[in-house]
Amino acid sequence: ARPRVGYYYTGKTQSQLLTDKVKKMTVSAYESIPVVVQESSSAYDAICAMFLEDVGTLFVVNKDSVLTGALSRKDLLRASLGNQDLSTIPVSVIMSRMPNITLCHSDDLVIDVAKLLIERQIDGLPVVKETGKGLEVIGRITKTNITRAFVELAEGEFE
Amino acid sequence: ARPRVGYYYTGKTQSQLLTDKVKKMTVSAYESIPVVVQESSSAYDAICAMFLEDVGTLFVVNKDSVLTGALSRKDLLRASLGNQDLSTIPVSVIMSRMPNITLCHSDDLVIDVAKLLIERQIDGLPVVKETGKGLEVIGRITKTNITRAFVELAEGEFE
Repeated sequence: ARPRVGYYYTGKTQSQLLTDKVKKMTVSAYESIPVVVQESSSAYDAICAMFLEDVGTLFVVNKDSVLTGALSRKDLLRASLGNQDLSTIPVSVIMSRMPNITLCHSDDLVIDVAKLLIERQIDGLPVVKETGKGLEVIGRITKTNITRAFVELAEGEFE
Repeated sequence: ARPRVGYYYTGKTQSQLLTDKVKKMTVSAYESIPVVVQESSSAYDAICAMFLEDVGTLFVVNKDSVLTGALSRKDLLRASLGNQDLSTIPVSVIMSRMPNITLCHSDDLVIDVAKLLIERQIDGLPVVKETGKGLEVIGRITKTNITRAFVELAEGEFE
């Protein structure tokens, strides 16, 4: 006879259940709104955009709103070390350029993005969507978003 | 009679077991080596130290090696926006100053540090130890360390 106990054994171990939870944590639930600047913007404008929007990573787009580059605080600090006038340097000179940008999609797993951020030593990734013209930036996911995901997972708020 | 089944019920729910794991994740296991600069260093020297050591947060100490301030990439970018010569600005002018610095200790929980980082919108905290003269910086914990903790927790590597 089946033992009558007040709980149900799923046949899964603790770590499998945790893994199941983690496999439901997708980028779409944790991403932030992306902040983009035009290729023709100056480094000075980009720094101002970073402060105005309070972000650490900007994405650079062309006139068709297609992703062409990414700018981190580190890229902009490096530019400021040179004795140049930041308002005359276009961001296209100092940005990381496609295809050398690590990307992700809305349905990617947060755990995979977390590993990419560590491995490639970057602060954030653009969340992209394919369009006829190229890649459109639809989101941003950073170590701040991963820190939020950690708090949710650790506190068991994630169901 | 006790049902003979091939597992042992601890009386804890899934989320309690996860919480138990999280309560064993202390700062000491995830912190990095701190990078410090002297109060008399210039903003230019600080930016160079950030690149040489590849960190996003520096801590400022006085001659007794006591913590007096903290510098983020954001603080240094802000300084670079002004039309001043970065090599003549001492870090003591642009740093966040004690006691307005969020601190933590080696035996604090990673989850509590993660919440502080989100709440106060900062990238990293100094790990400190009390000495007769004041606070000594013995470590650094940042969103990168939290991202590593997330990967470990999510992958169940943490035991």
